[in-house]
Amino acid sequence: MTQSTPPAAEQGGAGLEGRLEALGALFEEALERFVAARSAQPIENLHEGLRYALGLDLPAGPGRGKRVRPLLCLLTAEALGADPRRALPFALAIELMHNFALVHDDMEDGDVMRRGRDAAWVRYGAAHGINLGDYLLVQMMAALAEGEPDGLDDATRVRLLRLLTSALDHTHVGQALDINYRHRRSLSEEEYLRIVREKTGYYLAAPIQGGAIVAGASQRVIETIGEMAQYLGPLFQIIDDIIDLTDGKGRESVGSDIREGKRSYLVAYAAQHGAPAQRERLFDILDKPREATTREDIDEAFAIFEALGAVAAGRDYCRRLHEDARRHLERLPRELAEPLGAVIEMLVSRKQ
Amino acid sequence: MTQSTPPAAEQGGAGLEGRLEALGALFEEALERFVAARSAQPIENLHEGLRYALGLDLPAGPGRGKRVRPLLCLLTAEALGADPRRALPFALAIELMHNFALVHDDMEDGDVMRRGRDAAWVRYGAAHGINLGDYLLVQMMAALAEGEPDGLDDATRVRLLRLLTSALDHTHVGQALDINYRHRRSLSEEEYLRIVREKTGYYLAAPIQGGAIVAGASQRVIETIGEMAQYLGPLFQIIDDIIDLTDGKGRESVGSDIREGKRSYLVAYAAQHGAPAQRERLFDILDKPREATTREDIDEAFAIFEALGAVAAGRDYCRRLHEDARRHLERLPRELAEPLGAVIEMLVSRKQ
Repeated sequence: MTQSTPPAAEQGGAGLEGRLEALGALFEEALERFVAARSAQPIENLHEGLRYALGLDLPAGPGRGKRVRPLLCLLTAEALGADPRRALPFALAIELMHNFALVHDDMEDGDVMRRGRDAAWVRYGAAHGINLGDYLLVQMMAALAEGEPDGLDDATRVRLLRLLTSALDHTHVGQALDINYRHRRSLSEEEYLRIVREKTGYYLAAPIQGGAIVAGASQRVIETIGEMAQYLGPLFQIIDDIIDLTDGKGRESVGSDIREGKRSYLVAYAAQHGAPAQRERLFDILDKPREATTREDIDEAFAIFEALGAVAAGRDYCRRLHEDARRHLERLPRELAEPLGAVIEMLVSRKQ
Repeated sequence: MTQSTPPAAEQGGAGLEGRLEALGALFEEALERFVAARSAQPIENLHEGLRYALGLDLPAGPGRGKRVRPLLCLLTAEALGADPRRALPFALAIELMHNFALVHDDMEDGDVMRRGRDAAWVRYGAAHGINLGDYLLVQMMAALAEGEPDGLDDATRVRLLRLLTSALDHTHVGQALDINYRHRRSLSEEEYLRIVREKTGYYLAAPIQGGAIVAGASQRVIETIGEMAQYLGPLFQIIDDIIDLTDGKGRESVGSDIREGKRSYLVAYAAQHGAPAQRERLFDILDKPREATTREDIDEAFAIFEALGAVAAGRDYCRRLHEDARRHLERLPRELAEPLGAVIEMLVSRKQ
């Protein structure tokens, strides 16, 4: 797709799937162009690392990551009547921000794999890993500040900068809480939900709100999106937590959250509702080093969740979050509510 | 000092020292206010870490760091006729950026001490260390995006965002080059200078250019400042490299760059001008683990530098850099050239 191709919205009747595909192609081309321009004089490890973290060393396709956030941004801008190209600077910024967070989170969590291959810090070493994550965040700023030609006015750029800043602020608060709780042997449902809201609520709202800002949406629409995401973020996260106990992300990884000692919804539920002995045993298992956790340990943690009805409680809570999110969705203009609602249902069902 | 105090410029005749003191007080108060507002609901480790990294847990004074960059910014804005308060958002941003870089650089370099006490990552652990550095960078964005009341127009904010983005871009390129060269046993003077220019040239230009932008200076002034900093950054760095061989930062730390394996100007000079045996021996010493480096190793490295005249060459190069910087300084408007030149001479002589 070149600069002279008509915007995705105008391309024949394709329906939502077709629109997402066209917007995805528009985005990938813009990302390639942006990264190529920023790495005209490539520095060893740094610019390879940038392409690696963004999956640009792979052919276009799912290996690059799902690009959920930029798609939500472009779809929202388009649904509200803007040329999606005007939202490209923010869509780029949000994807660069997301990959920054992945590179650093993997280091903070000691995760060695990402999207089925070595995490960036494993591939390039810890020093380059930190520097590369920082570089991705600087590229986020560059995408927003410089953007594409015939782009955004300065007032809109500053509004979008405030939106990113606020989202990142909450994410780092959530991450600090998350790190703090790793060293604690207690966690209530309320504490779990606070961490998840800080880490995911604002971070999921930002791409949709950014698309709406570019399209000139009202403050009421921006706020409703923000409220909706406060339910959607935890919804997606709790679904992930439950998936870890069922089919995982592949048969062999069932229970990997337990090996990692992750403080999931199920852990919070069990810690709040379990007897002291159950709670002690659960945290003993979670706090074992990853490689020391046996299959029996995982089965025992599963049995504790089962005995307390944690999974059923989680599913029930998800139903309520889903309803609350839908209630907010209905308050959005119909031309946005319809495609956005369809994408949200796709995400919920793909996760389940 | 409160909001109703007159700007530092109007406070009695004190001369440069007095102006720097008044601007320093203005800055510290703004930083305290900014951090207090951002940590109204403090998160354990995160907000303590923010105050610790900025030295705000210490009484006002040199323990907090010299605040050279915000002072350069405020002094420049004031010299060019602006109320220095209008430059506070950028002065805050630049100091937050500087402390972000210190927190992450210490991790990348394995440095355990900073300003005479534990580096942030040693104090709070590696996971919080990464998150805290990221958080400082987000606070930089917040300072610029939100700033103080009756602050900057959006066009100026976007210009300042581009300036920060560009400086950070170069810094990360320089840092990646630096990390790459740690694993190499060759380094030319030209390669050394490229790393140092990328790491220090733009980073030193930004505070001065930012102050000038706030004061509405011409593009020619902004560019001249940028060119001047391309000499000043390496000048300050090479002076530091030489100090490490003389009185260090205290008697017992003489030669600490050699223990750390740092690729200094002296190493580059010796690697380019030494015989193969000298070069091999020098890199053997540099590449020893820090704790395995003996006093004899350090003396031997000193002797290699001495035999090749590396220190004399470094001092000679500094003289030329200093002259080049002064030549650019003279092209600046006199009301800026005078105070800026005086501060630069203070920095050069304090370092020597």
